[in-house]
Amino acid sequence: MLSKNIHTFIGCEAEYNEADIVLFGAPFDGTTSYRPGTRFGPQAIRQESYGLETYSPYQDKDLTDIAVFDSGDLELAFGNVERVLSDIEERTKKIIGDGKIPFMIGGEHLVTLGSVRAVSERYPDLHIIHFDAHTDLRDDYLGERLSHASVIRRCHDILGDGRIFQFGIRSGDRSEFEWAKEGHVFTNKFDFEGLEEILAEIGDKPVYLTLDLDVLDPSAFPGTGTPEAGGVTYRQLLAALLTVCGRTNIVGLDMNELSPTYDSSGISTATACKLVRELILAIKK
Amino acid sequence: MLSKNIHTFIGCEAEYNEADIVLFGAPFDGTTSYRPGTRFGPQAIRQESYGLETYSPYQDKDLTDIAVFDSGDLELAFGNVERVLSDIEERTKKIIGDGKIPFMIGGEHLVTLGSVRAVSERYPDLHIIHFDAHTDLRDDYLGERLSHASVIRRCHDILGDGRIFQFGIRSGDRSEFEWAKEGHVFTNKFDFEGLEEILAEIGDKPVYLTLDLDVLDPSAFPGTGTPEAGGVTYRQLLAALLTVCGRTNIVGLDMNELSPTYDSSGISTATACKLVRELILAIKK
Amino acid sequence: MLSKNIHTFIGCEAEYNEADIVLFGAPFDGTTSYRPGTRFGPQAIRQESYGLETYSPYQDKDLTDIAVFDSGDLELAFGNVERVLSDIEERTKKIIGDGKIPFMIGGEHLVTLGSVRAVSERYPDLHIIHFDAHTDLRDDYLGERLSHASVIRRCHDILGDGRIFQFGIRSGDRSEFEWAKEGHVFTNKFDFEGLEEILAEIGDKPVYLTLDLDVLDPSAFPGTGTPEAGGVTYRQLLAALLTVCGRTNIVGLDMNELSPTYDSSGISTATACKLVRELILAIKK
Amino acid sequence: MLSKNIHTFIGCEAEYNEADIVLFGAPFDGTTSYRPGTRFGPQAIRQESYGLETYSPYQDKDLTDIAVFDSGDLELAFGNVERVLSDIEERTKKIIGDGKIPFMIGGEHLVTLGSVRAVSERYPDLHIIHFDAHTDLRDDYLGERLSHASVIRRCHDILGDGRIFQFGIRSGDRSEFEWAKEGHVFTNKFDFEGLEEILAEIGDKPVYLTLDLDVLDPSAFPGTGTPEAGGVTYRQLLAALLTVCGRTNIVGLDMNELSPTYDSSGISTATACKLVRELILAIKK
Amino acid sequence: MLSKNIHTFIGCEAEYNEADIVLFGAPFDGTTSYRPGTRFGPQAIRQESYGLETYSPYQDKDLTDIAVFDSGDLELAFGNVERVLSDIEERTKKIIGDGKIPFMIGGEHLVTLGSVRAVSERYPDLHIIHFDAHTDLRDDYLGERLSHASVIRRCHDILGDGRIFQFGIRSGDRSEFEWAKEGHVFTNKFDFEGLEEILAEIGDKPVYLTLDLDVLDPSAFPGTGTPEAGGVTYRQLLAALLTVCGRTNIVGLDMNELSPTYDSSGISTATACKLVRELILAIKK
Amino acid sequence: MLSKNIHTFIGCEAEYNEADIVLFGAPFDGTTSYRPGTRFGPQAIRQESYGLETYSPYQDKDLTDIAVFDSGDLELAFGNVERVLSDIEERTKKIIGDGKIPFMIGGEHLVTLGSVRAVSERYPDLHIIHFDAHTDLRDDYLGERLSHASVIRRCHDILGDGRIFQFGIRSGDRSEFEWAKEGHVFTNKFDFEGLEEILAEIGDKPVYLTLDLDVLDPSAFPGTGTPEAGGVTYRQLLAALLTVCGRTNIVGLDMNELSPTYDSSGISTATACKLVRELILAIKK
Repeated sequence: MLSKNIHTFIGCEAEYNEADIVLFGAPFDGTTSYRPGTRFGPQAIRQESYGLETYSPYQDKDLTDIAVFDSGDLELAFGNVERVLSDIEERTKKIIGDGKIPFMIGGEHLVTLGSVRAVSERYPDLHIIHFDAHTDLRDDYLGERLSHASVIRRCHDILGDGRIFQFGIRSGDRSEFEWAKEGHVFTNKFDFEGLEEILAEIGDKPVYLTLDLDVLDPSAFPGTGTPEAGGVTYRQLLAALLTVCGRTNIVGLDMNELSPTYDSSGISTATACKLVRELILAIKK
Repeated sequence: MLSKNIHTFIGCEAEYNEADIVLFGAPFDGTTSYRPGTRFGPQAIRQESYGLETYSPYQDKDLTDIAVFDSGDLELAFGNVERVLSDIEERTKKIIGDGKIPFMIGGEHLVTLGSVRAVSERYPDLHIIHFDAHTDLRDDYLGERLSHASVIRRCHDILGDGRIFQFGIRSGDRSEFEWAKEGHVFTNKFDFEGLEEILAEIGDKPVYLTLDLDVLDPSAFPGTGTPEAGGVTYRQLLAALLTVCGRTNIVGLDMNELSPTYDSSGISTATACKLVRELILAIKK
Repeated sequence: MLSKNIHTFIGCEAEYNEADIVLFGAPFDGTTSYRPGTRFGPQAIRQESYGLETYSPYQDKDLTDIAVFDSGDLELAFGNVERVLSDIEERTKKIIGDGKIPFMIGGEHLVTLGSVRAVSERYPDLHIIHFDAHTDLRDDYLGERLSHASVIRRCHDILGDGRIFQFGIRSGDRSEFEWAKEGHVFTNKFDFEGLEEILAEIGDKPVYLTLDLDVLDPSAFPGTGTPEAGGVTYRQLLAALLTVCGRTNIVGLDMNELSPTYDSSGISTATACKLVRELILAIKK
Repeated sequence: MLSKNIHTFIGCEAEYNEADIVLFGAPFDGTTSYRPGTRFGPQAIRQESYGLETYSPYQDKDLTDIAVFDSGDLELAFGNVERVLSDIEERTKKIIGDGKIPFMIGGEHLVTLGSVRAVSERYPDLHIIHFDAHTDLRDDYLGERLSHASVIRRCHDILGDGRIFQFGIRSGDRSEFEWAKEGHVFTNKFDFEGLEEILAEIGDKPVYLTLDLDVLDPSAFPGTGTPEAGGVTYRQLLAALLTVCGRTNIVGLDMNELSPTYDSSGISTATACKLVRELILAIKK
Repeated sequence: MLSKNIHTFIGCEAEYNEADIVLFGAPFDGTTSYRPGTRFGPQAIRQESYGLETYSPYQDKDLTDIAVFDSGDLELAFGNVERVLSDIEERTKKIIGDGKIPFMIGGEHLVTLGSVRAVSERYPDLHIIHFDAHTDLRDDYLGERLSHASVIRRCHDILGDGRIFQFGIRSGDRSEFEWAKEGHVFTNKFDFEGLEEILAEIGDKPVYLTLDLDVLDPSAFPGTGTPEAGGVTYRQLLAALLTVCGRTNIVGLDMNELSPTYDSSGISTATACKLVRELILAIKK
Repeated sequence: MLSKNIHTFIGCEAEYNEADIVLFGAPFDGTTSYRPGTRFGPQAIRQESYGLETYSPYQDKDLTDIAVFDSGDLELAFGNVERVLSDIEERTKKIIGDGKIPFMIGGEHLVTLGSVRAVSERYPDLHIIHFDAHTDLRDDYLGERLSHASVIRRCHDILGDGRIFQFGIRSGDRSEFEWAKEGHVFTNKFDFEGLEEILAEIGDKPVYLTLDLDVLDPSAFPGTGTPEAGGVTYRQLLAALLTVCGRTNIVGLDMNELSPTYDSSGISTATACKLVRELILAIKK
């Protein structure tokens, strides 16, 4: 008998019960104010992952040695932001409750809030490592408090001062930078300087890693809604990610802001796929 | 002294006070479930209108003979659908209150609801002529009642049975077609057959014309979120529009669902520009 | 427990045992001499089918009322044409052997040969209805006999004279047209004139329907390797297909030559999806 | 010994001396006011012609039976319009002087003026058949008299009243239509109605055929600088061209305004190639 | 009463009288020999500037603290190069005459000549800092002396030896490099080595800064007519620009050669927008 | 008399007899498993070379001082891999037999095998320098031994251990890296570290240089089938190539894997053109 078409990220074909890491997509871009399209990110990553090898010459590890489950994309209703976040929270809670690490693929950056709600409930002393071009620290955007431009501010509402560490930042309102400097959030401009010290400080406390792919320079990652010149190279980002995963206790993570339609060459999607592979291999100790 | 950069649709440079027709853009696509991008429609139409002549050889009329005012685009907050509709309603009310005809450029089709709320308040016996590929008659879409797929159903909530007339329809749920057939809405499949009879019936009652550009065949109008093969030609649409404008009393109108990024050739935007010109010339008696 | 990501054509979620019709993809374009890319056809059709309704207002039927199984894409080895054809033949044989109708999505047109080998073995008096812009009747192409440009000639090798009926043809070598006219193949140039007479002649004999989508005019279907101006409209094609399915005994069918990368607007893929829906609904009596 | 790379339009490999028809490209778009790019037209047509057959099933003729020479593209200096026109005139004069028919591939429409200068000198009673979406009858454009928008007016300066016949026209300034109606130029709006009567009138007088490809509907020909909705279909255009070539004495011709970069699908270039083939086959008696 | 649609670069909404800096666009690409399209540069920059913040974390300054006026684009006649340059010269003269700094956005590089004519008349001891991939030092290009490839040579005609300083150069004819080395122009190949020494030499003399964006590596700036591999990074360019603006007396400047259609991802336009912001903030002391 | 259109890489217009270097294209991508399109590489390079100068400011040399012959593209039959390789081998043998250096432009990387067969026959102690992102060392790919993923393994079949030196490698199966480490092939991951030592070791033995352009970072070279993040910069590659050409005895070379359709900006093709120029200038002593 023939079997149905099953479609997962390459090498992530474990059964749910045996998996250590669980992927899911959050294809939402409903508060994106400028150029939408990150809703197509998760499906593009899954599709294009078949141009990738399962083996990483960087880490000398192979996806075939690890049990990862890909549970597909959530079905999210555009036009109702709060419900979208609840659906994400619920999925994350399920995965964490089963003792697995959730790895969410966005979508716009706001989806992080749903996941952080669930993870921080389970790990009250959660810390966030945040790689991004943008601060995302506005209290509201055109009056809306649930916005891609406010997501880290909303995470701060939950976690409080001194628990969020941003790197690569090179865009934001003056007031966002000023607010961060008041001690609420550690904002490192332009690159990863100071990362090792921060990681030493965090030690073995639980960490949520949120990666906005626009931290990369637009030359390396043109497929995103709000490209910001002056970003980090792929090699710099990979080194920083391997450092974070190697030294901290990652309990949940996400990657977001791939908007594949803006990059007809496909290099952005290919790069995102490679980072998914490297992150899976790096968080699996 | 140099003057600021003023940017209007070609030939629409009248002062507000002297204008008979007022254009405005509603760049919203926040409930679009499939492919977003109609938020870029109004600005693309304004920009590309400079590739157009002000004179129409079809009607032997010229925009330079008519007073039209272009008030630019509304600033709409993504993530709050009800507020978007209120902003549109308010703008439409202002224009109608000043005795002018509002001509809204969308955006996704849901924006029509804001405009119809204002126009129907002023003209309680309003009728709607609706050209579209899709019925847009769902009671809700994934649980949301304010959706691009429900907009005409919401208009029916206001106007009631026998006041809405659809043409060109070739896509929808089975239940939508069945509901329409119960007498709520006159749904004409595929083309404009029966249009003249309907217009005769409507007579001189006030009419709101809503044109979803995907009524056109995708070959003529690829730049839209949900292309539906089997549509009408440009010539058929133009003839139908000139007939409607010539025989009825248009008190408000809109054109929507241009998504310029999906058509890198620009023919969709050029076609939309031409239809704006033809509609302005046709409704000005 | 969460379930794996299953990815089928919209509305084709039946179990294999209960299905009447079985879809499968043949993502091969290895003999394409001009512009490759049809290998991406089946996956694009599956992906984009979610922009489609399951209900057809043309036929007043719904996919949800029919049992269709989507068995995904074959894994085909580029660089070995004969093995590719064997893999297709085997899959088709399995489906026919289980009493179901195989519906193959290509790929380049050569894939038809694999399917016709299997179907003609089961139905020795098989007839072929062939809609295409190109004759595909060369004996070889640059010395190769297994080529997209020779596929119908190879089918003729199996079926012999008077069993193949082409419509919409508007391109080919002079020698191909001359060979056809010798009585080997019925070649109708440009459109569907004469279709009804042919169908009457065929009666209830078993028919294999092969649809090369470039029979459509390039305006309606730009996403193909070798666009040929002067084709039929979508409405003409749909009418012809419904006629064929309504009057003959279809025992197998395919649709091929969608090359989605050549049409960034996506209208070609959307049209192909719609035709898959209409064909499924039409062949299910 | 290996031979150099020779690159001609498909099937046009005759030696100059034996050729009846001589192709050359005029890759100029220096006065294009809106979207440039027709400079890439001739090279794209030559390149993509290899996707075409040499045989026409429309005319049952083959390029391999005809002697055509392709002399490549002129090297034209941007920034000096008058010199560009002289270079074109000189090339045309050479070809006509050698008793051959010049077939120029533009470029923007202004290039026609260079060719018409040479042809009209040799044939003082020259008539022009002009297929286009635009009148091109302005006396000047932003003060410049040598402009793509004035080219037919400049031809009228040479030929005088009653010698120019336009078809397919659907765009222009009001004043252009009025000037034409004064008897200077025969302007037929929208399609080819009246073509046969005009041809009967012209009889066997020498005719220059100038084809602006934007006479086609943008759905069939999106790759052009100023697409105008409401054009003719490929079939209508082909029929009109075959009629003109069949009934008149063509002594020179051109085809222009393909701008390949605006059509990433390539259907516009493929259509232009096919029309080059059909025109060559039709003018060769 | 509603107000007309005013469309300026973000944060540049001052009145003319109070402005220190005046932006204007010069949308001309009439002598571009290879790939045209820079005519669309200024409008794209204005449009996309709304994806940018007004605040610079690089300089800790905000556009909202500075008075800048955007006077829109000049209307330039294609086909008459000398008139185009006069129109630019006149606009620049007006701005300088009113004691403001002109900031021109091209267009192709030739537009610089119009501006330099006006600025050098007012500041006879003008020096030029020129960042570019190309020397632009030809005496003529295909016989034309007013060409994008000759613009700096023409500026040298005005200013004479030792007043022009080029950086980042990596393409040109052998004769251009040889001519420069004779002492006419200081040409620094590949990067910004030696910039500080040059600036020290120039001291407080008046400087015109002309930035051809193709000095950037094509990876960071693909949207240009003649991409040249091996360019500088965004960070290198930004550092060099801030150095120039910080140490010299800028009396006029321009940025040119953005051709947005060649970069569908939009990263080139976004980068150009960011550089406009940084330059405005840097020249305002 | 007019001359036929001859189309060569810029500056490569020597006669065959006097040429030291002979270019030819191998437009084949028939075993490409992921994204095809390198078949369009050679023609794109030839076409776009006219945007390049013949002079190199890097080497201070000019193509006009060197005799290079461009023999155009081979006509290769898709669907028969062995015949394709024979055609390439034969062409290479002819060039080498005439005492000239063959410079092949692919096509997918498998074409290298044809060339290496001919060159290694003439130079039995041939060494290969291989720049690439991928190992290409599989023994077979989906059962096929003649595949783009196996090409260097097949070259090893001919040359044996210790004769092949790879640089820039960052992708492959675990087993490929392990096989290389057994001493068969020298594989240097990520960059050009160790290149100088290797070259010293090779000394003046004959070298075949094969350059897979995807060794470049995708930001600099997006136009390729399988982009791999983390590659070298253009400047790094150019330095490495000049080093190789300067210190070794190059007897044959190729450049492959440009797939121009994946990069609509054209920067990949422009970069490839520049590398062809630099390689020609560097190998001509």
